[in-house]
Amino acid sequence: MTHKQKAEAGLLTAAMERCAADEGVQPEFIRSAMAAGAIVIPGNPLRRTRPVAIGDGVSIKVNANIGSSPVIPEGGFADGGDALIEAEILKLEAAVSAGADAVMDLSLGPRQAEIRKAVLARSPVIVGTVPIYQTAFELARSGRDLSSLTLDDFLSAVERQARDGVDFMTIHAGVNRTAMEAYSSQGRSLDIVSRGGSMLAAIMRATGRESPLYEGFDEILKVLARYDVTLSLGDGMRPGATADATDRAQLSELIVLGELADRARSRGVQVMIEGPGHVPLDAVTENVRIAKRLCGGAPLYVLGPLVTDIAGGHDHVAGAIGGAVAAMSGANFLCYVTPAEHLCLPDLADVREGVIASRIAAHAADLALRNPRAARLELEMARARKTLDWDAQFRLYLDSETPARRRAQSGIGGGKECTMCGEFCAIKRMNEPL
Amino acid sequence: MTHKQKAEAGLLTAAMERCAADEGVQPEFIRSAMAAGAIVIPGNPLRRTRPVAIGDGVSIKVNANIGSSPVIPEGGFADGGDALIEAEILKLEAAVSAGADAVMDLSLGPRQAEIRKAVLARSPVIVGTVPIYQTAFELARSGRDLSSLTLDDFLSAVERQARDGVDFMTIHAGVNRTAMEAYSSQGRSLDIVSRGGSMLAAIMRATGRESPLYEGFDEILKVLARYDVTLSLGDGMRPGATADATDRAQLSELIVLGELADRARSRGVQVMIEGPGHVPLDAVTENVRIAKRLCGGAPLYVLGPLVTDIAGGHDHVAGAIGGAVAAMSGANFLCYVTPAEHLCLPDLADVREGVIASRIAAHAADLALRNPRAARLELEMARARKTLDWDAQFRLYLDSETPARRRAQSGIGGGKECTMCGEFCAIKRMNEPL
Repeated sequence: MTHKQKAEAGLLTAAMERCAADEGVQPEFIRSAMAAGAIVIPGNPLRRTRPVAIGDGVSIKVNANIGSSPVIPEGGFADGGDALIEAEILKLEAAVSAGADAVMDLSLGPRQAEIRKAVLARSPVIVGTVPIYQTAFELARSGRDLSSLTLDDFLSAVERQARDGVDFMTIHAGVNRTAMEAYSSQGRSLDIVSRGGSMLAAIMRATGRESPLYEGFDEILKVLARYDVTLSLGDGMRPGATADATDRAQLSELIVLGELADRARSRGVQVMIEGPGHVPLDAVTENVRIAKRLCGGAPLYVLGPLVTDIAGGHDHVAGAIGGAVAAMSGANFLCYVTPAEHLCLPDLADVREGVIASRIAAHAADLALRNPRAARLELEMARARKTLDWDAQFRLYLDSETPARRRAQSGIGGGKECTMCGEFCAIKRMNEPL
Repeated sequence: MTHKQKAEAGLLTAAMERCAADEGVQPEFIRSAMAAGAIVIPGNPLRRTRPVAIGDGVSIKVNANIGSSPVIPEGGFADGGDALIEAEILKLEAAVSAGADAVMDLSLGPRQAEIRKAVLARSPVIVGTVPIYQTAFELARSGRDLSSLTLDDFLSAVERQARDGVDFMTIHAGVNRTAMEAYSSQGRSLDIVSRGGSMLAAIMRATGRESPLYEGFDEILKVLARYDVTLSLGDGMRPGATADATDRAQLSELIVLGELADRARSRGVQVMIEGPGHVPLDAVTENVRIAKRLCGGAPLYVLGPLVTDIAGGHDHVAGAIGGAVAAMSGANFLCYVTPAEHLCLPDLADVREGVIASRIAAHAADLALRNPRAARLELEMARARKTLDWDAQFRLYLDSETPARRRAQSGIGGGKECTMCGEFCAIKRMNEPL
């Protein structure tokens, strides 16, 4: 029985109870939402991690993408590539310490399998992957053209990664002929920007045939069910420019994803839907609602969304704007965007900043959605500010470190106020006896 | 005749024509909106700056607060305080080069008058102030209690600053007895957090009398009209905690501000309304709409709003979320929030980051509001990305510098892709011939 099938059978698992306690809800609420597919608890039984619930009625969760790049530094790797692995472990630690609920290892390149195993061995949070990256890299290494990719090649990667203990996998099975026709009929300002989506588009263009992942979807589900891996249906057609948002390709793929989600649920496979992408702010809410409606209320995992294309160097801000509004509108899981997005592979500082920006967006949405814990935190901060209790403020901040450092460096010494207003502090003045 | 009275008389000024050209609208649109009070063009005739239109139907504008602090560094000022002035000029330059449309000099402390004059002499953008800071500091220096503040003390500061060439002034005339009663009757998690608001509250509490700024409002208007200074009606009762948003004090003051705005307009004084503050994300739109409705459609100038209190060290992100949604909902002018907010006086890096975050929010709202120029920028970026034209991308970014630096440092060398995906770049793949 998969975890979802247990929920359907009315069984309360330890993971459900743990998540219920974490969220401050009843275990039965988690169980019934899981049975209905409105909440997922990704967790590979071969690996023990703290379970986390993602979906309607629980707090918004944040994912951080880490992973190495196929770009080899000039001169190659003097250490044989061990530095590649170590760099990703440091990013994992940065993401977790900044408060990420999940990480995805998107490594594509040398030593990707070892990086994945190292991340899985070290991660206290759930880990996701995109198995087609492994397939594509292995094909390239063995001199085979990507278009020769078979369902078996792909299933082999899925199974190896499932055995490694991966908790959830992004699979772009919705990039099928129908979606490609919709894509071609309208055209785009910026084509397909999903790495996985572009691979499947290239295969289909080269072979003239249906996508092997779409055709073989039931076979994929069998492997996922066997290892009880959660499926994250990738949005290969996600808009990569705000001008392309909510177009035929995106919506056509979303309709396919809805069908595939039904099939996954009927096989006992937990399923999430991945969402856009680049979306103008006024279209974020409608995008979220359409995705929820078309996909039977499956947890929605959004990438940003980025509300503008011209925020390079600060895309975490554009992503936080879109993410907060998306989550308030029904999205459940925010994939972070870092300041390095569209420019280069993120470094440790980017990972940290990206996680924090997404957590701000997630918390803002939790507050807007009347999450009692979020409201309590805000009230506690109001009290800490009223009493000018700085230690309490630092403790309550989503990022405790930066505020404490800034204040220590500000030269205020032992003063109760800060260097903004000093003796003219409004709070201090209002605290004076009448 | 004030600028507003010229608009009412049907006169097209050079400033209106310049703003119309900048915004891509007809001069007559600007004139009629100015006559109606829906658009302001702050600009002190004693100082020549590039005019900028703020209000409905033109692009969202961004203000950066600069200004020195009353906190004296240990050991005082070895240079007599010249460093204080120089530091603020550097902030001015940082704000302007990052794209601020306006700055406010909020200096409160030693050499504040000289700082203001220096900022006015150097600023290519409009400059705002909060004259009660000067009054309060002068009273404190001369050993007088704040509660002895008279209307004449205040008018003297307003007039001196108007003569210096200040373009717009924040005046907290809405903190009157009615608003104070509403404030007292409900209570707050975090009282009054507006520096100016807390001063007026303290005066009223000490004297038991009506606010001198409310009582003397017509006198204040006479000075503002004489120098043609734009009035920004301060929100002394703005919520300083999300838990206090949209409370009796805030709304009571807003009703007063609506009445005062009517009086300002009838005297030919251009007027803006200042808005919250700290507001949960789900309440941002209603706050904006209520302010617009109660204040006769006056341009709305929001401080953030911050959608959570626990983002310390990253409040520019919380402010960008609130600012984008506020501007999409009708706010016209975004006051930046920097990473230093609630912690210390911002430094140069804070100013820069704060302006950029607000510009991202402003642009996201412009795009959502179908501003043709914003949409065109997005399309140009989509094209620059499709062709992997990095120089064009850098040129189009709101911040050109950071993206170019990140890419140069990424070690990609002459490659067309970036270090995120390398040869597996989706865009490159989609550009390959079929």
